[in-house]
Amino acid sequence: MTGAGADAAERRFYLDDLHVGQRFASAAHAIDEAQIIAFAAQFDPQPFHLADEAARGTLFGGLAASGWHTAAITMRLLVGSLPIAGGIVGAGGEIAWPRPTRPGDVLQVESEIVEIAPSASRPDRGLVTLRSETRNQRGETLQTLTARLVVPRRP
Amino acid sequence: MTGAGADAAERRFYLDDLHVGQRFASAAHAIDEAQIIAFAAQFDPQPFHLADEAARGTLFGGLAASGWHTAAITMRLLVGSLPIAGGIVGAGGEIAWPRPTRPGDVLQVESEIVEIAPSASRPDRGLVTLRSETRNQRGETLQTLTARLVVPRRP
Repeated sequence: MTGAGADAAERRFYLDDLHVGQRFASAAHAIDEAQIIAFAAQFDPQPFHLADEAARGTLFGGLAASGWHTAAITMRLLVGSLPIAGGIVGAGGEIAWPRPTRPGDVLQVESEIVEIAPSASRPDRGLVTLRSETRNQRGETLQTLTARLVVPRRP
Repeated sequence: MTGAGADAAERRFYLDDLHVGQRFASAAHAIDEAQIIAFAAQFDPQPFHLADEAARGTLFGGLAASGWHTAAITMRLLVGSLPIAGGIVGAGGEIAWPRPTRPGDVLQVESEIVEIAPSASRPDRGLVTLRSETRNQRGETLQTLTARLVVPRRP
């Protein structure tokens, strides 16, 4: 494992420094009802994200975080654990939420580089495909994200 | 076009009410520097999302919103424009950010149903694939999202 908090401040990876199979583990983030409701009120104001009682009779069966909230927390955890030179710049990716994020969950992200492709048209950069799993304290996968990142080559 | 704000309060669509090619247009949301910085400080604290000056020397060339912020605003606009019975429940999807969201951009989302698949194992629901484009006031596409939504059948 590389990329824990302390490393991030010390060394940043260029495309040339990365390899397929390289893994990064994030710190943890505890999510609570107040965070879930605050995010939902601003960005995803649906009953199952706003109040536990209203969520009971829905598909979720109880208060659940917006998937975009899980994605945003995942990004926060990646910023602290993935020391890419020039920062984490995503071009896009595939996201899935196999189970809802609940109040009291403690989120942690494990990431692995699955592909590295130097750009043919832009010799100063390349595309890195990173697969990130966001899990809770029971090891249940809440989100999978396969992201395409723009990463600079070593100057 | 269906699904403007007023309709959403009046009628909600079950799987059986939807058809491929059906389109939905959202209201508009104006994003400014303060919103961009507030979201980034909480979820994506990287220099190009936090300060215009720091962003100048980066790939973005100036302050840009986190892609997850664009996604969250898109969700907010979908909630107001896509009147699905039971709410908008996403199982996942593909997202891309072909160009950055900038301060002063006015975001608007146009969505189209591209596939409807009743569930084989769960006769009370189905999966709807929705393609949403988030554009700014110049018609430039900032985000494309192809989402898989869980939609109940008419009881």
